[in-house]
Amino acid sequence: MRTQVAIIGAGPSGLLLGQLLAKAGIDNVILERQTGDYVLGRIRAGILEQVTVDLMREAGVGERLDREGIVHHSIELVFSGARHPIDVHGLTGGKVVTAYGQTELTRDLMEARAAAGLPTVYEAADVALHDFDGDKPRLTYRKDGQTHTLECDFIAGCDGFHGVSRATVKDRVTEYEKVYPFGWLGVLSETPPVSPHAIVYGNSERGFSLCSMRSMTRSRYYVQVPVSDQVEDWSDQRFWDELKRRVDPELAGRIVTGPSIEKSIAPLRSFVAEPMRFGRLFLAGDAGHIVPPTGAKGLNLAATDVKYLSAALIEFLKDKSPHGIDTYSERCLKRIWKAERFSWWLTTLMHRFPDTEGFGQKVQEAELDYLVNSKALSTSLAENYVGLPL
Amino acid sequence: MRTQVAIIGAGPSGLLLGQLLAKAGIDNVILERQTGDYVLGRIRAGILEQVTVDLMREAGVGERLDREGIVHHSIELVFSGARHPIDVHGLTGGKVVTAYGQTELTRDLMEARAAAGLPTVYEAADVALHDFDGDKPRLTYRKDGQTHTLECDFIAGCDGFHGVSRATVKDRVTEYEKVYPFGWLGVLSETPPVSPHAIVYGNSERGFSLCSMRSMTRSRYYVQVPVSDQVEDWSDQRFWDELKRRVDPELAGRIVTGPSIEKSIAPLRSFVAEPMRFGRLFLAGDAGHIVPPTGAKGLNLAATDVKYLSAALIEFLKDKSPHGIDTYSERCLKRIWKAERFSWWLTTLMHRFPDTEGFGQKVQEAELDYLVNSKALSTSLAENYVGLPL
Repeated sequence: MRTQVAIIGAGPSGLLLGQLLAKAGIDNVILERQTGDYVLGRIRAGILEQVTVDLMREAGVGERLDREGIVHHSIELVFSGARHPIDVHGLTGGKVVTAYGQTELTRDLMEARAAAGLPTVYEAADVALHDFDGDKPRLTYRKDGQTHTLECDFIAGCDGFHGVSRATVKDRVTEYEKVYPFGWLGVLSETPPVSPHAIVYGNSERGFSLCSMRSMTRSRYYVQVPVSDQVEDWSDQRFWDELKRRVDPELAGRIVTGPSIEKSIAPLRSFVAEPMRFGRLFLAGDAGHIVPPTGAKGLNLAATDVKYLSAALIEFLKDKSPHGIDTYSERCLKRIWKAERFSWWLTTLMHRFPDTEGFGQKVQEAELDYLVNSKALSTSLAENYVGLPL
Repeated sequence: MRTQVAIIGAGPSGLLLGQLLAKAGIDNVILERQTGDYVLGRIRAGILEQVTVDLMREAGVGERLDREGIVHHSIELVFSGARHPIDVHGLTGGKVVTAYGQTELTRDLMEARAAAGLPTVYEAADVALHDFDGDKPRLTYRKDGQTHTLECDFIAGCDGFHGVSRATVKDRVTEYEKVYPFGWLGVLSETPPVSPHAIVYGNSERGFSLCSMRSMTRSRYYVQVPVSDQVEDWSDQRFWDELKRRVDPELAGRIVTGPSIEKSIAPLRSFVAEPMRFGRLFLAGDAGHIVPPTGAKGLNLAATDVKYLSAALIEFLKDKSPHGIDTYSERCLKRIWKAERFSWWLTTLMHRFPDTEGFGQKVQEAELDYLVNSKALSTSLAENYVGLPL
């Protein structure tokens, strides 16, 4: 089998890249290790920057997002028992974010891909990358008991943090990492969100909390927990009780509780691999970088990578210009590091650190107090939240 | 001997407080452990917020400051070999800072005090504080081989970080502290400043640098050094060579070098003691809090304390109203913690930390890049630099 661009991974990065390439008349094949249902079962981000919304529209898959996505004009910070709105829309000259679950976005992309008859190989095992330093790269994989070869012009590694793409070049990347001393216990429930028009970030003596949403009937809530905690330690009742103790009383009184339909603990990590290009192999999305979820930047950074990568590949394959692929890594990393900084900053500002002595805690409280009283720092938060300029 | 307000310490806090009280017709006596010449020999800060300039004028000692102080409209950041101006004046709606050496400010205050015939006891040894929890506090001290007693209504502890005032109440304060893993090697020289109208803050691979000034003929330069370094390790030539390697080439070429007239290594520390009032004893300035010098906040915080304390004492002694003294600690600490946050942030942003792994260093570089390209974060820097609203 032969294609122009072989894409590893059928998550949002790979699917969006495939869609944009196909729109430009460029053949592509996606290899995915898991089943489609498995991919859709992963619960992830749900706050889209405008650049991500625009890219979905450009890819021809923005219709349901435009219909069902819920525009957020602000965010809310809760600390010292009071809520403080940050007027994101006003502070950024009219910019917003859109709440739309990553699962829904992935589903839209999968359906569009199937409708267009574009090839996706699910349950492709033992994917291996070959000869990407030359101009005839290829992939091999096992499927239905047989070994297959996929010849291509380029390989796009969209296979996430644990994927084979970065692992294949691990001797050629520099890795930067920070692991945080806590995790997020997340609950998904079929209940109306307590704050449908603004994510609520809480910093209380008991730790961080987040009131988020996937739709008007599906809520996503989180509380900071020690990384040593097990999901089994947390009954639904304990979770709801804890969440309510971490927000202000008025908000707590309005939270509609219900059985969890998903409950899990995720560690928080910052990670960047440099560079993102290796001959004719490109990393995009989580394959190259991870942010803690606090700033909702993970999916949006992936979308930006895909925007740059699709343009670069189209430029090369249509116009024979190498400029886009030659500058891909540098362009991406410039924006990635700013989003890494923002995600690290917001994580540091909003969580309780078990190892922070008194001075650090007091500085955190002073920063929160300063933030909500300073138009300048509020604007900095807002402009990062909606996404810095490309 | 008896007075209304006994002030411990003849540094800028104590002298300014004495002047403001005297203007309001309130008797005060200053006890100082050192000689006046010793006090004047201490080389300290030199960047005044407008609130400090205004307070000097209010105290009737602003004439030379108005004549010789040099207004700064901006600051400059040097990193990655290039200089980036921050238009402090433009970003804050017209606010500025004034460069005027602390030594000069102290001299003006000393001379005004002497001219007014206000009592200052220099070389007062073994100062001890008594009965400040009641309404008849007193101080005892030794001078010329005799023990003296100073009865008073209030005691103002303006005697710095190592003074007796805070030490006397050490069982009643909560201390917050951060010690940084480096120091500043400072050189004072009789040379024209390389950047007379803007302090230059540098962050290079070799560490932090600062190009500052005391007047148009007197420069003050600093480089970050390991705390283990000794002044003897640093010849003038080594200092100048190192400084030039930490700034951009154009600026380096313009630095006028000369013999150091003062050279010392100071550790960097953040420190806050809470509360600042104990009955009829009040802490002000470095007696209550220390900032690393990076943000030039130390003298300005002391001036704010003195502004609040003088008003509170006048209110009580003239109008019998306890409101000012009852709210003194809380009012001061609110502003102090924001200045502590700013000083910590700017210190963290501009220095190389020996213990920071790769991720932290990359985040620092991303933050610098973001800062000089974001009007929002530049404004946050600027509004803190000129001083947050009272």
